[in-house]
Amino acid sequence: MTTLCRPAIAVPEHIITLEETLELARSLHGQHQQLGLVLRLIENTGVRTRHLVQPIDATLRHPGFEKRNALYTAEAKERVPDVVRRALAHGEVTAEEIDLLIYVSCTGFMMPSMTAWMINELGFRTDTRQLPIAQLGCAAGGAAINRAHDFCRAYPEANVLIVACEFCSLCYQPTDLGVGSLLSNGLFGDAIAAAVVRGKGGSGIWLERNGSHLVPDTEDWISYAVRDTGFHFLLDKRVPGTMEMLAPALRTLAEQHRWDVTDLDFYIVHAGGPRILDDLSRFLSLPPETFRFSRATLTENGNIASAVVFDALNRLFEEGKISAPGTGLIAGFGPGITAEMVLGRWTAPPQEHGAPPDAARFAPVGRTSTEPVGKPTDRPAAAPAR
Amino acid sequence: MTTLCRPAIAVPEHIITLEETLELARSLHGQHQQLGLVLRLIENTGVRTRHLVQPIDATLRHPGFEKRNALYTAEAKERVPDVVRRALAHGEVTAEEIDLLIYVSCTGFMMPSMTAWMINELGFRTDTRQLPIAQLGCAAGGAAINRAHDFCRAYPEANVLIVACEFCSLCYQPTDLGVGSLLSNGLFGDAIAAAVVRGKGGSGIWLERNGSHLVPDTEDWISYAVRDTGFHFLLDKRVPGTMEMLAPALRTLAEQHRWDVTDLDFYIVHAGGPRILDDLSRFLSLPPETFRFSRATLTENGNIASAVVFDALNRLFEEGKISAPGTGLIAGFGPGITAEMVLGRWTAPPQEHGAPPDAARFAPVGRTSTEPVGKPTDRPAAAPAR
Repeated sequence: MTTLCRPAIAVPEHIITLEETLELARSLHGQHQQLGLVLRLIENTGVRTRHLVQPIDATLRHPGFEKRNALYTAEAKERVPDVVRRALAHGEVTAEEIDLLIYVSCTGFMMPSMTAWMINELGFRTDTRQLPIAQLGCAAGGAAINRAHDFCRAYPEANVLIVACEFCSLCYQPTDLGVGSLLSNGLFGDAIAAAVVRGKGGSGIWLERNGSHLVPDTEDWISYAVRDTGFHFLLDKRVPGTMEMLAPALRTLAEQHRWDVTDLDFYIVHAGGPRILDDLSRFLSLPPETFRFSRATLTENGNIASAVVFDALNRLFEEGKISAPGTGLIAGFGPGITAEMVLGRWTAPPQEHGAPPDAARFAPVGRTSTEPVGKPTDRPAAAPAR
Repeated sequence: MTTLCRPAIAVPEHIITLEETLELARSLHGQHQQLGLVLRLIENTGVRTRHLVQPIDATLRHPGFEKRNALYTAEAKERVPDVVRRALAHGEVTAEEIDLLIYVSCTGFMMPSMTAWMINELGFRTDTRQLPIAQLGCAAGGAAINRAHDFCRAYPEANVLIVACEFCSLCYQPTDLGVGSLLSNGLFGDAIAAAVVRGKGGSGIWLERNGSHLVPDTEDWISYAVRDTGFHFLLDKRVPGTMEMLAPALRTLAEQHRWDVTDLDFYIVHAGGPRILDDLSRFLSLPPETFRFSRATLTENGNIASAVVFDALNRLFEEGKISAPGTGLIAGFGPGITAEMVLGRWTAPPQEHGAPPDAARFAPVGRTSTEPVGKPTDRPAAAPAR
């Protein structure tokens, strides 16, 4: 059975608090006609801290698309290897045992993509399949899990490594002054996540059924305007109400699997903003604490795009309260508007105090990361958990 | 058995000949120190005609990345639907029967991607999986076939639609004056291709085994520099010699399948340039006419990036000389440097005069393409070809 193993997460070392964000909004946009609304919206996000790859003063400067993208490339190469190494350890596999590399990121563009660099620098085999995805935005975390699931259905002995690398702060556009843009400036954060999906063996969440749903005629609700200054994130004010349209898709997928979407043991969903989580509670008749993992991600890291579902999932592992075989749902939401959903079953035994914290959660830069990762651990690969 | 059906192809209506290309090079770069070399290299490509989405005078103007990308978007929306309609007809499926949409393109960037637009406008189901790939360059055509193959292995009743949309002329950069850039200006063309891959039924090529290979430490041989003016294609002079490194990968994949790569019935490979094809002949000890389909694509359309393998494959269908069950190889080559390879078996009966030409091969613009495509044909879906 295909198993999604515990993710590894890293958030950068430059922290900005809600108070600093609000103060910045006041100082940068003191004359903005809707400043009061913007401040209220930012406060309502519930985002307490965010983590950025640069100090805030550097973040606020726009040196041009070329330099921004070069910085994306350098930061990705610096920060990805350690997260990969930890994800492989969680998955109890080595880099050489990985058959497919899925790299999702909508905040920088490279060709060749990071998958080629990872094969060259991190010890993956030269025949590893490469699947870079740049255009699914925040839904790409869910999409990566689902395409990994499909791949392991096709090749039941295969192992997949997913990397979600999002430096949203490198898409900050100082000239965008709409309410949606100013809200986004207070909502998004930077993070890297990685996770192994194994066709056989490993422990974590058995992936059983995945699905996708596009809400018709909402293409321009979440989108990039591609300009000479790079990617400009456009957020329509109707987006927070999207769950009314997506909750039925979650319900339908569960019904296809003969599960009741209102009666699962865990829910890991994209924390686009607080209303997403509030509305899911309402439309699925679930208590707010159901979405505590996603809410904690939002509070501590902000909306970290495709990395949200992995960060929230890691919190589920840390809490360690679920008894196998608990049933659950993972869902990424993003542009389209698209939901990428998967139903799974918790397989690990319950732990008294949860898993130990994922090491190096707050990862400072400074190491040179060209040594191969994922050297064989002392432990043998776990037997299939069934 | 997963079957790759006959592709549909469209090339735009604005034609530039080799003579016009050489004349342009002379007039634009009369003072270039290596003009003689550039002219010889362009002549040696064997590219006789290329097809562009705009007249050449408009092509030579660079209005900025934003306008270029907006033009990409508009042209894709205008030109993709008819190709999709014909590919669905070749695959004997309707839009509603497609489970996964793979859209590959490295010459424009949209988020949401064209997959969302296609679901909204062309009659695909809202639960169609979306897989947009922008970062695999010319190898993406092979990668799309391989990911479609994997998907049908995972879901044997599934149908996949691949679209490869490449407007290389929209990446023309007038300030790039290196020999590699000037050669590229005479090599690349625009085209759209689409093809259905069916888990069950359909006729064409049974897909049996796919693989990927990255040539170590060649990441900067084919790459994009991402600048304020958009994507700048960088081509290293070592690229034409790549087949010495990739021929062994083709050989290995065939051996894994107990086939002899020098003894197959058809070869459909990326026509990056003439040396690629010459060297494959040499390293695989095959007569030059083995690669006649790829060479015809190069001659008539230029290097049309990820669309090459589909255009060459369509020529195999048109020739119609292969007797089932002929064995063959399809391979895309691109940045990484990466080869995406698949071994397959021709299943259609031989035809006296080949398949009729793919309709509307030279597709003028002019239709508004918002009606749903792929309405049910009168024919029932073909029975599985086995």
